[in-house]
Amino acid sequence: MTHTLKIGMVGGGQGAFIGAVHRRAATLDGEAVLVAGALSSTPDKARASGKALGLADARNYGTWQEMIKGEGALAPDQRIGLVSIVTPNDTHFAIAKAFAAAGFNVVVDKPMVHSSEQARDLIRVVEETGVVFAVTYNYTGYPMVQLAAEMVRLGEIGDVRKVIVEYLQGWLAARLESTGQKQADWRTDPARAGLGGALGDIGSHAENLVSTITGLQIAGLCADLTTFVAGRRLDDDAAILLRFNNGARGMLSASQVCIGEENNLTIRVYGDKGSLAWRQEVPNQLRVTLAGGSTRLITRGGPEAGPVAAASTRLPAGHPEGFHEAFANIYRGVFQAIHAKRTGATAPTVPLPFPTVHDGARGVRFIEKAVESSRGGGVWIKLA
Amino acid sequence: MTHTLKIGMVGGGQGAFIGAVHRRAATLDGEAVLVAGALSSTPDKARASGKALGLADARNYGTWQEMIKGEGALAPDQRIGLVSIVTPNDTHFAIAKAFAAAGFNVVVDKPMVHSSEQARDLIRVVEETGVVFAVTYNYTGYPMVQLAAEMVRLGEIGDVRKVIVEYLQGWLAARLESTGQKQADWRTDPARAGLGGALGDIGSHAENLVSTITGLQIAGLCADLTTFVAGRRLDDDAAILLRFNNGARGMLSASQVCIGEENNLTIRVYGDKGSLAWRQEVPNQLRVTLAGGSTRLITRGGPEAGPVAAASTRLPAGHPEGFHEAFANIYRGVFQAIHAKRTGATAPTVPLPFPTVHDGARGVRFIEKAVESSRGGGVWIKLA
Amino acid sequence: MTHTLKIGMVGGGQGAFIGAVHRRAATLDGEAVLVAGALSSTPDKARASGKALGLADARNYGTWQEMIKGEGALAPDQRIGLVSIVTPNDTHFAIAKAFAAAGFNVVVDKPMVHSSEQARDLIRVVEETGVVFAVTYNYTGYPMVQLAAEMVRLGEIGDVRKVIVEYLQGWLAARLESTGQKQADWRTDPARAGLGGALGDIGSHAENLVSTITGLQIAGLCADLTTFVAGRRLDDDAAILLRFNNGARGMLSASQVCIGEENNLTIRVYGDKGSLAWRQEVPNQLRVTLAGGSTRLITRGGPEAGPVAAASTRLPAGHPEGFHEAFANIYRGVFQAIHAKRTGATAPTVPLPFPTVHDGARGVRFIEKAVESSRGGGVWIKLA
Amino acid sequence: MTHTLKIGMVGGGQGAFIGAVHRRAATLDGEAVLVAGALSSTPDKARASGKALGLADARNYGTWQEMIKGEGALAPDQRIGLVSIVTPNDTHFAIAKAFAAAGFNVVVDKPMVHSSEQARDLIRVVEETGVVFAVTYNYTGYPMVQLAAEMVRLGEIGDVRKVIVEYLQGWLAARLESTGQKQADWRTDPARAGLGGALGDIGSHAENLVSTITGLQIAGLCADLTTFVAGRRLDDDAAILLRFNNGARGMLSASQVCIGEENNLTIRVYGDKGSLAWRQEVPNQLRVTLAGGSTRLITRGGPEAGPVAAASTRLPAGHPEGFHEAFANIYRGVFQAIHAKRTGATAPTVPLPFPTVHDGARGVRFIEKAVESSRGGGVWIKLA
Repeated sequence: MTHTLKIGMVGGGQGAFIGAVHRRAATLDGEAVLVAGALSSTPDKARASGKALGLADARNYGTWQEMIKGEGALAPDQRIGLVSIVTPNDTHFAIAKAFAAAGFNVVVDKPMVHSSEQARDLIRVVEETGVVFAVTYNYTGYPMVQLAAEMVRLGEIGDVRKVIVEYLQGWLAARLESTGQKQADWRTDPARAGLGGALGDIGSHAENLVSTITGLQIAGLCADLTTFVAGRRLDDDAAILLRFNNGARGMLSASQVCIGEENNLTIRVYGDKGSLAWRQEVPNQLRVTLAGGSTRLITRGGPEAGPVAAASTRLPAGHPEGFHEAFANIYRGVFQAIHAKRTGATAPTVPLPFPTVHDGARGVRFIEKAVESSRGGGVWIKLA
Repeated sequence: MTHTLKIGMVGGGQGAFIGAVHRRAATLDGEAVLVAGALSSTPDKARASGKALGLADARNYGTWQEMIKGEGALAPDQRIGLVSIVTPNDTHFAIAKAFAAAGFNVVVDKPMVHSSEQARDLIRVVEETGVVFAVTYNYTGYPMVQLAAEMVRLGEIGDVRKVIVEYLQGWLAARLESTGQKQADWRTDPARAGLGGALGDIGSHAENLVSTITGLQIAGLCADLTTFVAGRRLDDDAAILLRFNNGARGMLSASQVCIGEENNLTIRVYGDKGSLAWRQEVPNQLRVTLAGGSTRLITRGGPEAGPVAAASTRLPAGHPEGFHEAFANIYRGVFQAIHAKRTGATAPTVPLPFPTVHDGARGVRFIEKAVESSRGGGVWIKLA
Repeated sequence: MTHTLKIGMVGGGQGAFIGAVHRRAATLDGEAVLVAGALSSTPDKARASGKALGLADARNYGTWQEMIKGEGALAPDQRIGLVSIVTPNDTHFAIAKAFAAAGFNVVVDKPMVHSSEQARDLIRVVEETGVVFAVTYNYTGYPMVQLAAEMVRLGEIGDVRKVIVEYLQGWLAARLESTGQKQADWRTDPARAGLGGALGDIGSHAENLVSTITGLQIAGLCADLTTFVAGRRLDDDAAILLRFNNGARGMLSASQVCIGEENNLTIRVYGDKGSLAWRQEVPNQLRVTLAGGSTRLITRGGPEAGPVAAASTRLPAGHPEGFHEAFANIYRGVFQAIHAKRTGATAPTVPLPFPTVHDGARGVRFIEKAVESSRGGGVWIKLA
Repeated sequence: MTHTLKIGMVGGGQGAFIGAVHRRAATLDGEAVLVAGALSSTPDKARASGKALGLADARNYGTWQEMIKGEGALAPDQRIGLVSIVTPNDTHFAIAKAFAAAGFNVVVDKPMVHSSEQARDLIRVVEETGVVFAVTYNYTGYPMVQLAAEMVRLGEIGDVRKVIVEYLQGWLAARLESTGQKQADWRTDPARAGLGGALGDIGSHAENLVSTITGLQIAGLCADLTTFVAGRRLDDDAAILLRFNNGARGMLSASQVCIGEENNLTIRVYGDKGSLAWRQEVPNQLRVTLAGGSTRLITRGGPEAGPVAAASTRLPAGHPEGFHEAFANIYRGVFQAIHAKRTGATAPTVPLPFPTVHDGARGVRFIEKAVESSRGGGVWIKLA
């Protein structure tokens, strides 16, 4: 297809979970096709994975370094227009920086990098090269999250006073990493996961959700990070008090030891005129209450969802969309930005937003500061 | 990709809703690619639609008749291995029969055809040619529906006694068809929609859901079909009592005038040892109660979902899947069947089921008998 | 207390369930005190029960006949102002008629009597004597039911088109009556329960709920009554199609063999301008959707509940009221009517309604006609 | 009635909300009768209120001091056996101490007193006199709360790791107290309410719920109390991190400015073997998940509710009980204790628990320490 974007992927080979999600998300609307990859850090495994996905041999690379070289050598209309980096956290920085420096547009998983120093370095490269750069805080791709953010922006719930955000899972309630389970293994290893355990893996999503919806800055925080499972080296539970720049207060809870919880990311935002509540596991619904009125259930595709949610909606109300579509909305926003950059075309009336390198940097800083607070015994730390 | 199935589409051009759903569903897992189409009954529009989707000119047909001829002329490994027919109901029969007769595997939307006579004709062709033939009763593609069917098969809820199935929508509560809305227009036109309005459009899904989950046959029914919106020519509400071959009883309600309902397909099955309840708008959950115990919420991907649901599951628990994935499961089952036919390979341990030409025929017969009952004033009709 | 109404009770002695409910409901607001009783059909048990409840010996009667005589002999300001009849169904007629004929105000359990003939007889007595007479269709005492009825009356959801009402329980899924369980025993015995099993016990509540909320008359019905449990002599499952006098359609399901259901009485009313949904197990909430808007959750005590619901509300929003309070609202309405009759006082601005002898008669007729329909094989029967 | 307990009330006169709740709760089961009162701090209003409630003139006191004297002068079998103190917080101490010192059994509203010093004084008097003394942390009277506590005690969810408790209301989101609304007025006045606003009014309920269910002690806390409404003198929002004596962590949120929230008290307890979740607004259900299993919905009166919940249950499953019944369970526990003390009878097999003077003292201390933490800028304070 003539308009179809050629994309490449680093990581995400056989046995990986998130690679398949990225591929489905990127190609859901027929706007992109995977043509190149360096799908594993082990060259043989990389090529076997690429073969299974039907990559042409010439573009089925053994390493990401070869991929940069190989793709860079192709004619501009043949080379990939975007690379998705879905490797373990500790490799994000080097890979993302190298691709961006070589002029490739980048999508990278969160947390973006391991330190604020790396983040600043990456921001510099992105700004110098002007590449489109996105971080897959995928939960902000849900239409009802976009609507929530729009309602706050428009002042419909007034000044925000209180935010309660939770991201609760139970899959690490026992020491799963000792069984060799791959997902558990790297997430509990400081060398690969970074400073935060539950904090980094899911707490960072919670932070991004709060920031995206409220538009507020976290001015201070007080964190109590705990490791409940014996022998684990990173936190598996985080409880954090927040103070925002406008005086609002927040509570953030992220945990992976909550038996009975699956992927329970929820946010409630209370303003002086009304409130919003959203839950990722029932993502097609936004609860809205204005002062003096009853609670309304606004549904994706429904009569009060409005143009912002409509822009990221594919199906009518009552036809559930989910995780894949939200993820795909991040990609679609990236595609729009790449298209606009290439053609100089004006953006759509309601462009699809996506988390940028700055969101990524803010997320890294949040993790650093929460760890600093907790290591200090749970003291208040300023972020301003 | 070498293993990728080449598919074609009839109907589903610009402005159509369901065509895009079929395309996303068929390609979600990277197992198929759209290479041919006759995307509209108007040749110019067909070609414009195909061009927008990136079809090569040579396989961007003006009519489905040209498509049969053109694809048939290609080498076997080049021609399409499957055609998706997503045209208005009244054209299903001729198109599906012609493709099947020419040896193409077929996916066709429901209701499959307009009469039992047509259905019998189609069954004959399918059996003679041995093509893989599926009808997109897509709601049975949900993993939790598959689990429900499996639990009934295994006797976990005992002998089924009572079934309550509802498919309620509200979008036709006013005379939307008089505004020129395309979806409403053909669904309320007997020439194109067939004998049933709400009955045919959504009641047939309800019938298929009941039959798929319970495995029972409807032995008799008593239907009260109503047209509430003045000037409408087909029913917009159906209330039906059911008697099953094992003595179980059922109530089926299908309506498109229920303001406040979006796409509310629900089923509850009560046996003499337990019960099941599922709701399409919250599709990742199955409620199960065994006699003497509390109600359990079994979730897709969760600890009690089992291998049958796992076979049609892509994401971990708590990461919502929805309408697209369920639809894609129907396609995936078809792909498995085509692959098995081509290679003689044994099927997967847990094959993905899909509704066949016989499900399609049973659905047509259900519509005919319900209309017959209602026209007789709401009398009991035998189906045995 | 000077304003406190003196009440008596027939039935409801030791071991009875509903007697205690009536006593709590009648005295919840401190407006009535139990002073007399004939609490069992067995005189010794009656007196033992009365003694346990603290009745004075002189007014702790062995039989209801003695009670009529004894109370009638007291000075008007000493005798009971109301009798609650909570005996098995088969005795309602004789007892209620005798008390009413003797000039006592009456509250009687549902179903009121066993036949329309008895009902007509009772109506005559009530009209001749002018006593206040109520039937405890207690579910209509919920504030949100009152609000629903008011909204329909005011035309907020427009002309009613479709009603779906269900009353599902599971406690009789096995043959509980053969174990000697008292509640199961009399409810499954035609001699004591009357013509209907599940139909009479709970289907009649469903009928009353529909009639109360919609204000419509059932013009015709088609019933399929089934006995699933071997050896049971009355229906334990009822599936009924309804046609209302305004052309609306309805589906009524009542069953006591639905494992997993506790006391699941729900009603959904769809009009041409909007819809209402209420569920007894979550009684403090009414779901309301007007065409073109999102669904609102109106809560008892909440901002949109209005004066009608407020009149039967005791606690602020979020402080759950339940079964007892709804039951007490029926009594409170009766107390208001008695007070008005005695004093000639004008009724409150928003009087509390209660089901009358006419509601009782309509309920009996509904049972008779549903049985007639089902015995005829499931034929349509007119009720007009 | 011979077994009926005579009770008196201080406060709760005309216009008061909670007085009527106490009266309904105390008399719900016919086990107590109100015979005396000093129902207002204004003698004329006190007597008018008592007259309206039917109190005999001789026991309709103008002041609580007269009531102690008057009741004390009666024969032991005539005087009240229990006094309910439902006055504003600031008067609890003096009144409760005086009644207890005079040998009367006491029920007093929460928070029990204004300071730990008062609490110690009161404990001393209660221990010296041996009176039965209860504090109406009424939410622990719910059967499902009792079941939750029992399950934790029995180790069914293992060692508790994390607790999330919230008590969110929205009724004070605007400055209601400036309108003269009585409930708002005293609750926002430090002189009458005490140190805490939302913290004291509802945060103390949250603390009691946590302590009752988990049986753990709060070893440390870090509190961020905020006043969002301009001009208000006490906190209207509290966010608190908790550390328990066993190493578990907790988050407690109490707020009265959360528009859209009514009386949303919820608790989730996560252990190393399973978890529990309960919500006051849907009180008849407890969600339980054990590791490796699906979530179960245990209902009051249902098959897995067990004997502890049954002891405080009046109605079958599906017949909603609510706020009044839970409140009444506290009274019933007190009645059992009084009966046991009087008769020397052994307690019931499953006695109904109630919060004691020690619960009251712990609650006061919690408020003091949270205020201390917040005033220090949100520092950690030890409670051990």
